[in-house]
Amino acid sequence: MAEKQFVKEIADMKADFPQWYTDVVLKTELVDYGPSKGTMVLRPYGYAIWENLQHELDSRFKKTGHQNVYFPLLIPESLLKKEAEHVEGFAPEVAMVTVAGGETLSEPLVVRPTSETIICSMYSKWVNSYRDLPLLYNQWANVVRWEKTTRPFLRTSEFLWQEGHTVHATEEEAMRETLGMLYLYRDFAKEVLALPTFIGRKSEKEKFAGADATYGMEAMMLDGKSLQAGTTHHFGQKFSKAYDIQFLDKDGKHKYVWQTSWGVSTRLIGALIMAHGDQRGLVLPPRIAPVQAVVIPVAAHKEGVVDNAQKLVARLENVGIRVKGDFSDNSPGWKFNQWEMKGVPVRLELGPKDIEQGMVTIVRRDTLEKFTLPLENIEQSIINLLGRIQCDMYERSLAFRDAHVRTVHNMAELKDALDSGCFAKVVWDKDENCEAEVKQQLQATVRVMLEQEKPFQKQCSICGKPCKNPVVALIARAY
Amino acid sequence: MAEKQFVKEIADMKADFPQWYTDVVLKTELVDYGPSKGTMVLRPYGYAIWENLQHELDSRFKKTGHQNVYFPLLIPESLLKKEAEHVEGFAPEVAMVTVAGGETLSEPLVVRPTSETIICSMYSKWVNSYRDLPLLYNQWANVVRWEKTTRPFLRTSEFLWQEGHTVHATEEEAMRETLGMLYLYRDFAKEVLALPTFIGRKSEKEKFAGADATYGMEAMMLDGKSLQAGTTHHFGQKFSKAYDIQFLDKDGKHKYVWQTSWGVSTRLIGALIMAHGDQRGLVLPPRIAPVQAVVIPVAAHKEGVVDNAQKLVARLENVGIRVKGDFSDNSPGWKFNQWEMKGVPVRLELGPKDIEQGMVTIVRRDTLEKFTLPLENIEQSIINLLGRIQCDMYERSLAFRDAHVRTVHNMAELKDALDSGCFAKVVWDKDENCEAEVKQQLQATVRVMLEQEKPFQKQCSICGKPCKNPVVALIARAY
Repeated sequence: MAEKQFVKEIADMKADFPQWYTDVVLKTELVDYGPSKGTMVLRPYGYAIWENLQHELDSRFKKTGHQNVYFPLLIPESLLKKEAEHVEGFAPEVAMVTVAGGETLSEPLVVRPTSETIICSMYSKWVNSYRDLPLLYNQWANVVRWEKTTRPFLRTSEFLWQEGHTVHATEEEAMRETLGMLYLYRDFAKEVLALPTFIGRKSEKEKFAGADATYGMEAMMLDGKSLQAGTTHHFGQKFSKAYDIQFLDKDGKHKYVWQTSWGVSTRLIGALIMAHGDQRGLVLPPRIAPVQAVVIPVAAHKEGVVDNAQKLVARLENVGIRVKGDFSDNSPGWKFNQWEMKGVPVRLELGPKDIEQGMVTIVRRDTLEKFTLPLENIEQSIINLLGRIQCDMYERSLAFRDAHVRTVHNMAELKDALDSGCFAKVVWDKDENCEAEVKQQLQATVRVMLEQEKPFQKQCSICGKPCKNPVVALIARAY
Repeated sequence: MAEKQFVKEIADMKADFPQWYTDVVLKTELVDYGPSKGTMVLRPYGYAIWENLQHELDSRFKKTGHQNVYFPLLIPESLLKKEAEHVEGFAPEVAMVTVAGGETLSEPLVVRPTSETIICSMYSKWVNSYRDLPLLYNQWANVVRWEKTTRPFLRTSEFLWQEGHTVHATEEEAMRETLGMLYLYRDFAKEVLALPTFIGRKSEKEKFAGADATYGMEAMMLDGKSLQAGTTHHFGQKFSKAYDIQFLDKDGKHKYVWQTSWGVSTRLIGALIMAHGDQRGLVLPPRIAPVQAVVIPVAAHKEGVVDNAQKLVARLENVGIRVKGDFSDNSPGWKFNQWEMKGVPVRLELGPKDIEQGMVTIVRRDTLEKFTLPLENIEQSIINLLGRIQCDMYERSLAFRDAHVRTVHNMAELKDALDSGCFAKVVWDKDENCEAEVKQQLQATVRVMLEQEKPFQKQCSICGKPCKNPVVALIARAY
């Protein structure tokens, strides 16, 4: 009965993955749709995930010497236009303030789609000597990009993110930063989100507007599509020349600085959902779950059950576990479904029999395994279990991913791989025509180039021609 | 010599307080001016203060049962217009997006000046039963208000703040929340910012657009002006009726909810500066200071000095003190001035003689007292000293404030009090004409009503007429 009720709430993920996703984000109250086009409201459960994620990332940023700052939301249109490629990339999707304080502005203000331009204009003022370098700044902010098709977390006209913007004296240092932050993102995804990712350089076509080189982190979703979960950009001197950011070096010469930027956004929550979820809803990794354990009294009307359940909650809370007791008047079955849907890693059921035996019944959300544990030293047992779930979730995701990557030698194999919900490794000569062909025929893109991997054949997997400068590239359909 | 150099940097606060303020915020690199009108950039030192403040406030919000959420930045103009007083209050200062994604929008979008309207539109959807209540939500966000005259922290076209928005089943509960948050702000200002404040109800004229009642927290600046440092609003049912937020109560009846909102902003940093600063620059309370202690080696070229100074930094860091060692090649005198200007609560000077004697020279920023402390157990000594400075700063602020509040019986005394840089307590019959008179003649306003205080005379201090319903009100010139 409860099971039936549950099944009604969320579409079958195998039959209709997009509908499953929509159901999950709405029914678990992560988000709701905002009143204006393509916006979302982050509800407490969704925002709490973002806060946990922010907290983990922010401390990693600070440990690597970065400081937080905040730059204005509104950017004079003329500033945006200074770097030609950049404005070309972003102009089509900006929102513009043209009226303020009851008057038409003499120059429209762009609501930031990203902050390179306004930040560079200030850096130009702040940077004078080699002594001022490096600047390792980051900001947590909202940005607006007017997207045609929107979906909660994946693509919304406003989203929350962090954007790092750094300035260096040398190209080498800027490149070290670009790659260093890419590795930081990868480690964060692995350790905190339990997400294995592919990292690598983006193709010329897919790079950030205004960058010399863009690096991306790609995660495989359960439907075999890829989700770009983070990017880092090496700007070279493009922005420093456009915005005149020069410094007097030790050798007495004026030089343009070298810059990077890097960012991740609330998109990561979409990745979490689609990489770990199941038929019952969310499955959250313990390190990021707003509620790590839920205690549910069974036969709550019996003497001592609620008391003991409350004590159990208090014990777990005392050791820093994010725990919740559900003492509402809903049935235990309804509560089980509800908290499973919400992806809480561990459920503790406590009934009269458990109490009598000094035990508690445990259900793991990730495997749905059910077993009992002694109430004695339950704090340490749950801490261990949460650690175990975190590891297992990563291992399972990794195994899933590895089972869904194929090495393909030609277009037929590529098509077959993509149609089977797999990522494809191809040999590619970085020819934009091949990239366009894949996009047009198979609606797939080069996600990243795996420059460390040795090409496994001499000809391009796409056009079949011999390669001059072959690279292994990862091709997938993507969000 | 160093002293001279220092004096050049910051205007004399007694001669020109506004210029002193501007010098302090810019020279200590708290902020810089942004490229578009009235905007500011929060630089690392300024943003770090905001982060400390956020962290302290956020944990107090969560301990009192509040959850964080995030609502969209852009509000359809029609939504803003639903509550008549509200739109009248905010319409003159909104910024509007009229073009997005290359097209003119059919309905302009307002960049939020505050979020009541968009939040209420969602609450109307989320609230159905008494079981859904209360909603105790808060968001940390940026807001835009097109102000004519702007000053960093005090009034800028964009600022950062938190806005709490709660929904309750009964009027009593909403009033308890309104006052509870006012007390929370007051305690925070006292304990964390070392700021004594006056709290009380605002006059009808000064209340928030759309509120039934507004409560404010006012802090005295060193120039005798008042700064509104936080407000809480009791909405009654004004918004719930305008946005149709109803719930089915236990008694089976549909009822409109009762609401509150409350907020503080980056303005608090302005309050910190102007309440604690001195001729040398910032004086930051230890609990909010980004750097609580700075270690400066003296005669750094002598053997062992830098080594020992680094060890000292590490020892303080190990016990969680926010400490910095200044090992740059500037002179000690320059460093002393620099860190004094930045308001770091404790300076530790370590030279060969100190090391030889097992001592370290200490300078307190708040009193400029200089003394030595044994290196043995220096961690605990500094922790104690920081605690002492925090308390002393509050006590000094309180004494200053109490010495600058006058009980006034008539307009002459009121004028004299204000001209002497004091707050004035008046007896007032809540007559708007008297309020207007004070504003016009003395450029001062009723800051809050001190409803607990007993009126000290029968006639109004402003017009001299007998009062029907007298209240003690606090009048001051204000930021």
